[in-house]
Amino acid sequence: MAEQKLQVVPIGGLGEFGMNCLALRYGDDIIVIDAGMMFPDAELLGVDVVIPDFTYLEEHRELVRALVLTHGHEDHIGAVPFLLSELDVPVYGTAFTLALVERRLEEHELAEGAQLNAVKPGQVIEAGPFKIEFIHVTHSIVSAMAVAITTPLGVVIHTGDFKVDPTPTDNILFDLHTFAEYGKRGVLLLLSDSTNVDRPGYTESERAVRPRLEDVFNRAERRIIISCFSSSIHRLQQILDLAAANGRKVAFLGRSMMNVTEISHSLGLLEIPDGILLRPQDIMQAQPDKVVVVASGTQGEPHSALSRVAVDNHKHLSIRGDDTVVLSARIIPGNEKSIYRMINHIAKRGANLVYGSMNPPVHVSGHASAEELKLMLNLVRPRYFMPIHGEYRLLRRHAQLAQHLRHQGLEDIFVLETGDTLEIDRTGAHRGERVTVGRVCIDSGSIDEVVEDVVIRDRRNLSEDGFVLPIIAINKHTSKSEGLPEIVSRGFVGVDDNGSDILLAARHVVARTLEESTSEERTDWGVMQEKIRADLKRFLNKQTQRRPLIMPVILEV
Amino acid sequence: MAEQKLQVVPIGGLGEFGMNCLALRYGDDIIVIDAGMMFPDAELLGVDVVIPDFTYLEEHRELVRALVLTHGHEDHIGAVPFLLSELDVPVYGTAFTLALVERRLEEHELAEGAQLNAVKPGQVIEAGPFKIEFIHVTHSIVSAMAVAITTPLGVVIHTGDFKVDPTPTDNILFDLHTFAEYGKRGVLLLLSDSTNVDRPGYTESERAVRPRLEDVFNRAERRIIISCFSSSIHRLQQILDLAAANGRKVAFLGRSMMNVTEISHSLGLLEIPDGILLRPQDIMQAQPDKVVVVASGTQGEPHSALSRVAVDNHKHLSIRGDDTVVLSARIIPGNEKSIYRMINHIAKRGANLVYGSMNPPVHVSGHASAEELKLMLNLVRPRYFMPIHGEYRLLRRHAQLAQHLRHQGLEDIFVLETGDTLEIDRTGAHRGERVTVGRVCIDSGSIDEVVEDVVIRDRRNLSEDGFVLPIIAINKHTSKSEGLPEIVSRGFVGVDDNGSDILLAARHVVARTLEESTSEERTDWGVMQEKIRADLKRFLNKQTQRRPLIMPVILEV
Repeated sequence: MAEQKLQVVPIGGLGEFGMNCLALRYGDDIIVIDAGMMFPDAELLGVDVVIPDFTYLEEHRELVRALVLTHGHEDHIGAVPFLLSELDVPVYGTAFTLALVERRLEEHELAEGAQLNAVKPGQVIEAGPFKIEFIHVTHSIVSAMAVAITTPLGVVIHTGDFKVDPTPTDNILFDLHTFAEYGKRGVLLLLSDSTNVDRPGYTESERAVRPRLEDVFNRAERRIIISCFSSSIHRLQQILDLAAANGRKVAFLGRSMMNVTEISHSLGLLEIPDGILLRPQDIMQAQPDKVVVVASGTQGEPHSALSRVAVDNHKHLSIRGDDTVVLSARIIPGNEKSIYRMINHIAKRGANLVYGSMNPPVHVSGHASAEELKLMLNLVRPRYFMPIHGEYRLLRRHAQLAQHLRHQGLEDIFVLETGDTLEIDRTGAHRGERVTVGRVCIDSGSIDEVVEDVVIRDRRNLSEDGFVLPIIAINKHTSKSEGLPEIVSRGFVGVDDNGSDILLAARHVVARTLEESTSEERTDWGVMQEKIRADLKRFLNKQTQRRPLIMPVILEV
Repeated sequence: MAEQKLQVVPIGGLGEFGMNCLALRYGDDIIVIDAGMMFPDAELLGVDVVIPDFTYLEEHRELVRALVLTHGHEDHIGAVPFLLSELDVPVYGTAFTLALVERRLEEHELAEGAQLNAVKPGQVIEAGPFKIEFIHVTHSIVSAMAVAITTPLGVVIHTGDFKVDPTPTDNILFDLHTFAEYGKRGVLLLLSDSTNVDRPGYTESERAVRPRLEDVFNRAERRIIISCFSSSIHRLQQILDLAAANGRKVAFLGRSMMNVTEISHSLGLLEIPDGILLRPQDIMQAQPDKVVVVASGTQGEPHSALSRVAVDNHKHLSIRGDDTVVLSARIIPGNEKSIYRMINHIAKRGANLVYGSMNPPVHVSGHASAEELKLMLNLVRPRYFMPIHGEYRLLRRHAQLAQHLRHQGLEDIFVLETGDTLEIDRTGAHRGERVTVGRVCIDSGSIDEVVEDVVIRDRRNLSEDGFVLPIIAINKHTSKSEGLPEIVSRGFVGVDDNGSDILLAARHVVARTLEESTSEERTDWGVMQEKIRADLKRFLNKQTQRRPLIMPVILEV
């Protein structure tokens, strides 16, 4: 067999937040690590979900041997249905991660026939020339793993998302020893999570929220309503334990909350004390000081349980004065407005609010801070290092952090963005050719509903100044327009101000453009549309300083 | 004279961030404190500026005696041109605040005839039955003041925006003594800034950024580019001082930076060491380790100096590797995406970046934290307290903070939102009738360009799923449609996917609706438009799960 090179191909998640996906190729074999989605920026108007462009994988579909999932967060598994609808490939992950994937597949009617293979930390699988060992890491979701991939050229370690929690609530420690073992034997390349590289020190243990939650339970005289991410099983366990200790029953509100607690309970990852559960419909009948409600909707999502509770529009829960509402989650940048709007509504109902940064914390991150990232680098001591997961500024900072390893055998650091590739052969590592990548915008969560860029661009234009459509009926016998042209407009000017005057004047502008055109021009619709557009644009811009989308329509009648 | 009541009428800024404006009325006399604007949410598509609805003041225009400005930030003075275009009223503020106002008035060609009266802290003016004393406070902008308004019923203190900086860089201390004096004599009502009530402890002194900036100057081997708010004169002074101490010249980039430094320098508020200024066009010729550039654009505003520098599109400055870029400003919630996008571009140019939270800080807030707010309450010891400036959750927290004053004579606390009113007479204080308030959306910064709510709603709809316009030409003689109806659409479906199929099918749906209508219906355009809209909506929603704006156009030809 001819000597092959190892290619590292980031399909998503490098130089951007979310939609993590990375391919490793050696000769004619490819494995894929994670296939995540991203929640769209507000700028992507009307788009529900963004997934990576899988062109590279589709073009090499015969070579793809495995999809390996590090953990069950949406930015690592959210695009699995979209990838599996194109590629029939075995999927590996923990039972919990796969259970979450299966729910997603069912929603897309893809569950049947999917090759889902549950693995455990410590287990090794083979896919083509790759030997993949799964390594337990601590993270905000249970069942998170890193992967150590032995290739013919050496070992590649992909950390997935992690923090090094010294006191995890489930007492399953971060597997320092396996990382150390690989580090001792020699690692070719480390790919490590950069999400929190700009935070100094160590990320606090999940256990650090316990004193704050205890304080909430001690002070609350009525109902406690706690919102956290439904995937934060550790957090849910702490809430359940505290509820049991304080003689309160627990009701879960929200579909995702129901789903995930059911899955994690059935897999033995969430311990639910006997008789502690309260049905949502019984919340209002129970004694207020004997109830904890755990509701989804930390980000102020408009249809979430907590948002509906905030505006007193939830059928099972109505907040009263002196209830306590706790937001035990990060405020994701970009969501502040909707979160604070929700909090304001809750404040108006008279509830006591616990949210934001405080000491002891009401939320801790699941990602490693700078010191933990250094620990990872020092444990693994790779020959090459490539930061993954995060915007460019974070990847670069992570690269700077790794400089101190130079004297310990680190030969080179590569800051790549999605679509850049890294090639490693016997002589060393270097950047390779770029591959096709990008983002695919999805409407309505349906697989067919890809939103094209041009549609989004149009929506953006429309959202700024609306549209103006001059409609001209041209008599096909005389080539003359019938009557004064019509104008239809929305989102441009209102009718209260001088909008109707402007639109009437605009009709005359169009009529004059028609009159002043030759009969030859009038038979060429393309020319006429362009002339009308140009004249009208000039007129409207002068009158209003706005630039609506102008789209002349010529009807031959 | 019959006994009158004192009315407190918040026109803006209570229960919302920005556009601060509050009226005090006693009998037939009104004074107004501040007239600020608000930068719009991303949800207000295409809107540039939001100002308060001044209906209440316009309805009582003959009674308005004075507009008093506490300081020169946009959320306190940004709406002055809009108010003065309606109301001819004398304006009072410091020379610096009025200079900023004058620039704004000039932009709107309203400067001529405006009655701008410069006042100083300690000065007292009279307006109707009101005696207004100005009190110096510390804030992130220079020349900030609180006002103590003596009314026939007692003293009302309005803090403006403040923090209690124990070591201001200009050594002009917060005037604790005057607040103490009023407190001792008895204050009827305190209106106090709630912006930072959710931060525990004390806000750090402006001087606290000095060590961080020193560190930047000590380490930088090439150009230093610092971005801060142009109104942060204290910050600019510290940068100028450090530049002088380190033998670097200073260039200002950005129009607002130029404007404000010119004004503050001419008023003696900013000391510019001799010969230190560098013209922007000379930046690239100067030795890189002898230059500091101070650029506007901390919030990633697309046309700002720093944003243009970030994408290497500024005519006077091009970032090279190992330049140092410092963001010495708060990341305003909602701006994260654009700020981080700008930072990523700067990182790609290889610059060293200093931004975000760190110790010592690279930015400190200008608003009082919880302990300072308690100090204000304890100094003033009002009979009534009403938190101002901020969202409801903050006003409420500020109210809770004030509870501890109950035993010191605080009789009642009022959490009001914009439009609620407070009435005080000899018997006490109580809520009054609501007044007309709201927000007015302005396009293009022009006074006439008010954007109606319906226009914004249309833009929002358009931005989500675009529009579909069926156009039907009906022969006025036969009442039949001529040919297959046309459909014009943008922002709905693309042409690459099955969009054109859907639109063709939609034309047939419209045709069928027409055919299946009676000739009587066909003569009633309103009925036909409604039928077509309903049928098309059902069809498109079934095909695409989207809800474009549908607007049937019927042409009689």
